[in-house]
Amino acid sequence: MEQERIWTAALVVIGDEILSGRTQDKNIAQLASWLNVQGIRLAEVRVVPDREPAIVEAVNILRARNDYLFTTGGIGPTHDDITVDAIAAALGVAVEHHPEAMATLEAYYATRGGLTETRARMARVPAGAGLIPNRVSGAPGIRVGNIFIMAGVPHITAGMLDALTGTLEGGRPVVSGTIGCWVAESEVADLLRDSEKAHAGVSIGSYPFFRDGRTGANFVVRSADADLVAQCVADLTQALEAGGRTVTVGGI
Amino acid sequence: MEQERIWTAALVVIGDEILSGRTQDKNIAQLASWLNVQGIRLAEVRVVPDREPAIVEAVNILRARNDYLFTTGGIGPTHDDITVDAIAAALGVAVEHHPEAMATLEAYYATRGGLTETRARMARVPAGAGLIPNRVSGAPGIRVGNIFIMAGVPHITAGMLDALTGTLEGGRPVVSGTIGCWVAESEVADLLRDSEKAHAGVSIGSYPFFRDGRTGANFVVRSADADLVAQCVADLTQALEAGGRTVTVGGI
Repeated sequence: MEQERIWTAALVVIGDEILSGRTQDKNIAQLASWLNVQGIRLAEVRVVPDREPAIVEAVNILRARNDYLFTTGGIGPTHDDITVDAIAAALGVAVEHHPEAMATLEAYYATRGGLTETRARMARVPAGAGLIPNRVSGAPGIRVGNIFIMAGVPHITAGMLDALTGTLEGGRPVVSGTIGCWVAESEVADLLRDSEKAHAGVSIGSYPFFRDGRTGANFVVRSADADLVAQCVADLTQALEAGGRTVTVGGI
Repeated sequence: MEQERIWTAALVVIGDEILSGRTQDKNIAQLASWLNVQGIRLAEVRVVPDREPAIVEAVNILRARNDYLFTTGGIGPTHDDITVDAIAAALGVAVEHHPEAMATLEAYYATRGGLTETRARMARVPAGAGLIPNRVSGAPGIRVGNIFIMAGVPHITAGMLDALTGTLEGGRPVVSGTIGCWVAESEVADLLRDSEKAHAGVSIGSYPFFRDGRTGANFVVRSADADLVAQCVADLTQALEAGGRTVTVGGI
């Protein structure tokens, strides 16, 4: 049987505001969900501060061992926006003003006070880069090699991801089915382990919750093969119900 | 002048559910805020899958270059909970049942069907480890060397952090002041850069927002010296208001 090619991506979240706890990151979950639809798995995430050596280290390790690398944050016009310079340094290339980005910013700022030198900072890209459209504000995203440089503000990144939809090569998306049950994980740990073993090609995750003083768990069955997921969910549901439990099945 | 000792921590978030986008992580922001009160800076975060080599790599790099290392996730009783084994492997030590954890679980499960072998999995620790109390459910957190192994469920981790409050050595907490203003970052980028330069020892972060079709930004002034923060916030506020802008000052 031919081994299925698995496509992977990594994400570097750049920003002191995440590491200080001021801002709750939303880009990890957003990117993960979007990648999955493209048939690409998010393999690793790193959150690093606004310091060039930290960005360079993370970018160079992760771009080498994944098909794609995304970054979020640090592409605005202010002094703490150092992502473009750091990625150019990581790649060993110069930084230049992208003509199309300059034209976009000229148009955007025509009615907003004009394109100043400071605003033109947002047209700076690592040499050889292309642009990713930004529908919300002036500054575009940037693609250079297998690196995708996105905004930190989640709804701007959402627009950039939307523009990239369908343009990246990927494999089969991972499909999942979720079984919710009012049961302590520890009561069904053996059942879960055996179910995973009995259904080669699926993984089962167990995620406990605690509500109203009661204990429950969601069991998430994942695979790139939807039939395998459906079969495993059906078998696991039957086994849980045979123990007298009520389950709720969602997803797939 | 004596150089101030800066204490740092890193976090490894362990879990396929974060990388799949199913679960929105809340532990990064929670830990970051708690660490800051302890006078410890969160220097780096990595999110890794439920795979031992990925956990071992992240743990060994980050524990060596930080004062403290925290992990969240993967300490329950099911087959996908591999954190304890992975950290023992990273440290090159055996896994053993901790007597006090066994006693805690015995008591917890006395009225919940008894302590089975599966449940006793939650008493397993890397050899030489101590425990971190868990007020919500049975399984304790674990401390081994400079590594703190916490739950994945955020409110359980919150209880564990509460139990650790004041027990870790740290420096002065970072203090911050926030200035909110309806202004495009690009209009005040020079002012921000100059303000940071004029107030040695502070950093200024600029975070744009977009509401009701208008553009604004929060400027966050940070330092371990509260007087420096107050002075910088006052000067920056004055400069922004001198430009005819209305600002809102918070924090400190």
